[in-house]
Amino acid sequence: MATTTNLTATTREKLGRAHHAAPLLSELSTRQKNQMLLAMADAIESQKERILAANQKDLESSTLPEAMRDRLLLTPPRIAAMAAGVREVAVLPDPVGELISEWRRPNGLLIRKVRVPIGVVGIIYESRPNVTVDTVALTIKTGNAIVLRGGKEAMHSNQCLVDILSSTPGLPLGAIELLDSSTRDSVQELIQARALVDVIIPRGGAGLINFVVENSLVPVIETGAGNCHIFIDQSADFDMADRIVINAKTQRPSVCNAAEKLLIHRSIAGTYLPRIANKLVALGVELRGDEDAVRIAPEIHRATEEDWSEEYLRLCLAIHIVAGLDEAIAHINRYSTRNSEAIVTANEANARRFLRAVDSAAVYWNASTRFTDGGEFGFGAEMGISTQKLHCRGPFALAELTSSKYAILGSGQVRT
Amino acid sequence: MATTTNLTATTREKLGRAHHAAPLLSELSTRQKNQMLLAMADAIESQKERILAANQKDLESSTLPEAMRDRLLLTPPRIAAMAAGVREVAVLPDPVGELISEWRRPNGLLIRKVRVPIGVVGIIYESRPNVTVDTVALTIKTGNAIVLRGGKEAMHSNQCLVDILSSTPGLPLGAIELLDSSTRDSVQELIQARALVDVIIPRGGAGLINFVVENSLVPVIETGAGNCHIFIDQSADFDMADRIVINAKTQRPSVCNAAEKLLIHRSIAGTYLPRIANKLVALGVELRGDEDAVRIAPEIHRATEEDWSEEYLRLCLAIHIVAGLDEAIAHINRYSTRNSEAIVTANEANARRFLRAVDSAAVYWNASTRFTDGGEFGFGAEMGISTQKLHCRGPFALAELTSSKYAILGSGQVRT
Repeated sequence: MATTTNLTATTREKLGRAHHAAPLLSELSTRQKNQMLLAMADAIESQKERILAANQKDLESSTLPEAMRDRLLLTPPRIAAMAAGVREVAVLPDPVGELISEWRRPNGLLIRKVRVPIGVVGIIYESRPNVTVDTVALTIKTGNAIVLRGGKEAMHSNQCLVDILSSTPGLPLGAIELLDSSTRDSVQELIQARALVDVIIPRGGAGLINFVVENSLVPVIETGAGNCHIFIDQSADFDMADRIVINAKTQRPSVCNAAEKLLIHRSIAGTYLPRIANKLVALGVELRGDEDAVRIAPEIHRATEEDWSEEYLRLCLAIHIVAGLDEAIAHINRYSTRNSEAIVTANEANARRFLRAVDSAAVYWNASTRFTDGGEFGFGAEMGISTQKLHCRGPFALAELTSSKYAILGSGQVRT
Repeated sequence: MATTTNLTATTREKLGRAHHAAPLLSELSTRQKNQMLLAMADAIESQKERILAANQKDLESSTLPEAMRDRLLLTPPRIAAMAAGVREVAVLPDPVGELISEWRRPNGLLIRKVRVPIGVVGIIYESRPNVTVDTVALTIKTGNAIVLRGGKEAMHSNQCLVDILSSTPGLPLGAIELLDSSTRDSVQELIQARALVDVIIPRGGAGLINFVVENSLVPVIETGAGNCHIFIDQSADFDMADRIVINAKTQRPSVCNAAEKLLIHRSIAGTYLPRIANKLVALGVELRGDEDAVRIAPEIHRATEEDWSEEYLRLCLAIHIVAGLDEAIAHINRYSTRNSEAIVTANEANARRFLRAVDSAAVYWNASTRFTDGGEFGFGAEMGISTQKLHCRGPFALAELTSSKYAILGSGQVRT
């Protein structure tokens, strides 16, 4: 069933340990897992100096630009926030063991569908060391083993954090493994180890995610791409539209649920476009647009075909004038990465139609796309935002780190 | 996001039509879909002669061995059964549109998680033409478009069935597409068309399934492998054990939930093994076993290491003597394909432990593994038996042909 032949000895050993740890983790009680999480949070705080020293090493050898360096940087408040995050996961309900459904068949068989851990979860991520702690907390809470492959630039920080976390009393050997980040080979090894790893979750830019999806033999939960659209309908309240567009574009432009495209109903474009363009430019947003948009607001640069697919992740927005709701829906379903889209309208029928017909993980009526987030949805934690349709879609956390199985209780039944 | 460059013109056209049909199908009401299904059932019956003629062409050009020819053969009762199956799907509840959960956030946002179709479902299968009709019924019922890639040996039958089914009044163009089965290229094209196809479900032998899993860029629901085990514990009732072992091995040896391995507790092997070996041999079962088993019952042939992983799919069974429950669990978790396993025991603690620790889709206490089936579970239909842990596990049907999305209703909320 499996290809493990191409693994280096070190990776094979680490994945083998994780595979061996998984059944032991699956048998831990909720109480045991929560105690371990609280011990991890305490250890992070008590070993703050050691973590800062390791992080300093990463910063010293870093050649990253300033904005990326900030993602890598750990500070005492950031370390305290990591520990607090682990404590929050400890108090969340444990999905493992949940009886999902139960029924008795006419032949007397009792069928029980129960929630179980997935097994071994592989995480591939980039520079932020807090991802190490966040993902360990979520996977241990759900009784899974975790194999981490972090960014090279954070290698000392990640190694230090994994050393601290995996020293937790009672935690099975292999529960937390960190792969070599100095070579891309370890990514390749992890995503091909179908016999040893049950799911891969890539967290990072489009390049990383596409590489994983295209090369993985292990099932993947695709996350993070976000070419998000806002459609301003004919009946939109302009003040509300302004608030939503400005928030979705400028509040945090580097994240996947930030708006990248603005569609405007033709009948209001002459009045609404100059107004919003003016406000966005004042906020430092670069504007691109189709021919009609440029004609109405000359501060807009002409967009190319590539713009409609591009995820800017910065203060840039492309504007398209549409004939109406149908054209807006068709444009979104053609170019969107199926993360988050919004309609601003006072017309309930149009809103319902948009919510139904737009094929994205989260579809908003009169709200900012920025709410697509585990915390904002009230999940109390988040592993990522799934932009695929299998297993989970949208923000996901503990329940989606589980699988199910059927336990069937009989009294000697055979099939006839 | 997608690679469609390597498609032949014909495949691109077919997949493009299916991709285009998907949103139209997703908007059909339950009533509309059920009417189409009933019309399909009527058309299958009224065009029986045409189907039989097409099937005759396949049979005439077939070079398959006799057992495989029977899988290909259509008869008037088999055609009536196909139509009846479609009518059964029509009366099942429609999962699409279901409100899975709904909650209001402190900021007033109303979040609704609703069930939606997946989009375009690709099915790759082998010789049985009834799979064409069964899978079309399930995918249309769930508002999905379907792309079929059947076996070459059934090409005339499949083409005829698809012609009849896709002529259903009201069905969008592209809802049912059949790819060229004369070349393996069409499999490769289908599983790489990530922009146009949302899920691939391979139904067939291990060779087909492994090829798809290893080469697909589209997410796969892995089905069908079944190296199933039965463990006879120390306290087992021997009569019950006999019934279960004989049923699981001999009632239909060619299917994935048939037993392939028998584990026996060492303390009862001396008495139980000769008895069951005797009965199995009388039923024509070839027996293989470890050294201890061969010593106890000399009619058993010595098994090799490969035997423990092999899925025989015929009247052959390998027997392993174990020291107890722990060794049985460890052996199963090492060699099983994670489909179905059973324990026969009077010891409830051992049974609970087995049900919890064995990592398979369906785990039985005192019942035959042969019950792992959508019909036997009471689902009224079955698309396959998933042996993976993401999205669905075990027998799956309508609900698992859906995804979900979040519809969020606001009144101008923005993120702070």
